[in-house]
Amino acid sequence: MSDAYYSQELHGPFETFDLGDFELESGEKLRGLRLAYATFGTLAADKSNVVLFPSWYSGTSKILEQAYVGPGRALDPAKYFIVLVNQIGNGLSSAPNNVPPPFNGPRFPRITIGDDVRAQQKFLSEKFGIEELALVLGGSMGAQQTLEWAARFPERVKRAAPIAGTARATAHNKFLVQTFIDAITGDPAFEDGWFKPGAVHRGLRRHARAFAASGFTPQLFNEEGWRGLGFTTAEDFATGFVENHFLPQDANNLLLLAQKWQRGDVARQTGGDLAAALARIKAKTFVIAIEEDGFFPLDDILAEQRLIANSELKRVSSIWGHLALFGVDAGYNAAIDTYLGELLALPEAAPQAAAA
Amino acid sequence: MSDAYYSQELHGPFETFDLGDFELESGEKLRGLRLAYATFGTLAADKSNVVLFPSWYSGTSKILEQAYVGPGRALDPAKYFIVLVNQIGNGLSSAPNNVPPPFNGPRFPRITIGDDVRAQQKFLSEKFGIEELALVLGGSMGAQQTLEWAARFPERVKRAAPIAGTARATAHNKFLVQTFIDAITGDPAFEDGWFKPGAVHRGLRRHARAFAASGFTPQLFNEEGWRGLGFTTAEDFATGFVENHFLPQDANNLLLLAQKWQRGDVARQTGGDLAAALARIKAKTFVIAIEEDGFFPLDDILAEQRLIANSELKRVSSIWGHLALFGVDAGYNAAIDTYLGELLALPEAAPQAAAA
Repeated sequence: MSDAYYSQELHGPFETFDLGDFELESGEKLRGLRLAYATFGTLAADKSNVVLFPSWYSGTSKILEQAYVGPGRALDPAKYFIVLVNQIGNGLSSAPNNVPPPFNGPRFPRITIGDDVRAQQKFLSEKFGIEELALVLGGSMGAQQTLEWAARFPERVKRAAPIAGTARATAHNKFLVQTFIDAITGDPAFEDGWFKPGAVHRGLRRHARAFAASGFTPQLFNEEGWRGLGFTTAEDFATGFVENHFLPQDANNLLLLAQKWQRGDVARQTGGDLAAALARIKAKTFVIAIEEDGFFPLDDILAEQRLIANSELKRVSSIWGHLALFGVDAGYNAAIDTYLGELLALPEAAPQAAAA
Repeated sequence: MSDAYYSQELHGPFETFDLGDFELESGEKLRGLRLAYATFGTLAADKSNVVLFPSWYSGTSKILEQAYVGPGRALDPAKYFIVLVNQIGNGLSSAPNNVPPPFNGPRFPRITIGDDVRAQQKFLSEKFGIEELALVLGGSMGAQQTLEWAARFPERVKRAAPIAGTARATAHNKFLVQTFIDAITGDPAFEDGWFKPGAVHRGLRRHARAFAASGFTPQLFNEEGWRGLGFTTAEDFATGFVENHFLPQDANNLLLLAQKWQRGDVARQTGGDLAAALARIKAKTFVIAIEEDGFFPLDDILAEQRLIANSELKRVSSIWGHLALFGVDAGYNAAIDTYLGELLALPEAAPQAAAA
């Protein structure tokens, strides 16, 4: 099931770039790292119009394209060279399901958000000669990558828009993600990651429902907000939309991503000092929060935004909660376009004094 | 494990009352229904000082006693005759784990909140000759019973204080509870309810963690609010407090309660018309919401409170979220005592015109 899912047919067109062997923050090595990506628009001669948009948990470049890119949108290919990049482990880029033995499946090395960002920087430089980003943005795990980019490469990032995510996973966030992990690993068919194709479907279904219980808002269920998508009941929606999303995915891929999510922490750059890491950011930053977000609560996002010098908190409300990211709420989509358009119209951040 | 848990030693002293065979709303019959209860204080000669407090999900009369009853508290045995009653299925009252074959385990009949309330009314009348309640109150599933009492027996209930619960389970609430159910039934050791003693511990542990992920607030995790209880990390707390609470309990008991919770609906009395059911309530009612409640969100409670004529919404804030009910937050305890004291000091509700 997995191979057919992670395909050009379902998620393309995408291209891949071979980064060769790649040293990881863990000290391990990822052999033959390939990043899958899709681009839209034309790279300006001065390379000043680059927008980078890394993928989120369980998503690929395809949903980013469908939900955020297009003529008349803030991310308009007529204006920008938009690079949608698939994070390591998502199944289009190198992942447990697609690398050769013996480092396949549960033997795939542990990855951090910092690994992704370093790999993306190398890819952009080697493939396109891109050294500066007009904007980096992303939702959820994409927000983790966005903030890591802005803090790790402050001179290269002019604008940043983390959406519905944090620079460091909170204790509650880690705990919540662990319940998703346990839903999969608790399935006896998981067999320590050496499962037969399709065998972990009970675990994936439980994972989907745990994800839905807090990923959407209570209001969505109570108002049957899914009717516009053609679903009839909470059961029908949970099965037809959420289980359907996760069932074809590789359980080891999801676990790799979930563990990367839990370890998300820009302060790994600064010996654990979150304020110091966020103080490195020079980009003009719109920190965008979904007010009803059950994964990344507004308070947690606000606490970090206050540590980013040249930033503003922007709020959007949606009964779809965290999963408004999917682009299913026209109100959310319009608000995001407004914020991104406003941010892209701003001049680059004024030079700041270097930290003492 | 179960028998030692549901014991006088751990949960007593409690007494039991035999209601004989009991007809259920489902049309089934519960043979030899026993209700377990504990009383505090002295029944007044005119029987005007009765406070009824039914138990919540996975709790017994013991936690109600420890967290809410005592000299100087609103529920002071020097003033009131306080009856803490164990809901059907909790393991002190008749439950899957303690009735004889063949109606034991998964063959225990399905129970509704309405069954509990009818059984409690019969018990109070037959055992004590009590026909009126000065106050009925309860948290979570206890709030379900409280509202059912007030709507079903409007002439018998003078005051009501549902805390952190609703009269009808919302779609999201049912979905959330289903993830708790699935955590247990998804354990292969559950074996359709015919498990060996102690065998379902993985399912019970997963259930505990799903419960904790939304039962407490993100802030509790982030601020390590459990340190005051002697726990060191989120893991330590989840295992030592939450798993420890559920592990000794009978999986069939928990499932019976969870399914009763999902079916909670006072409008079963009125052909599905919630407004009509709540309009039956004559009691002076304080509808108490925990602002951060992840199980019963403030908005859902507010929507129902507006349908109760002689009611006021009272709010309490706690980083313990829904599970502040356990009495672990001194601020919550003080606020509840204030509200209950205020409600008990009010004269009985003035007679209202009967509904047309």
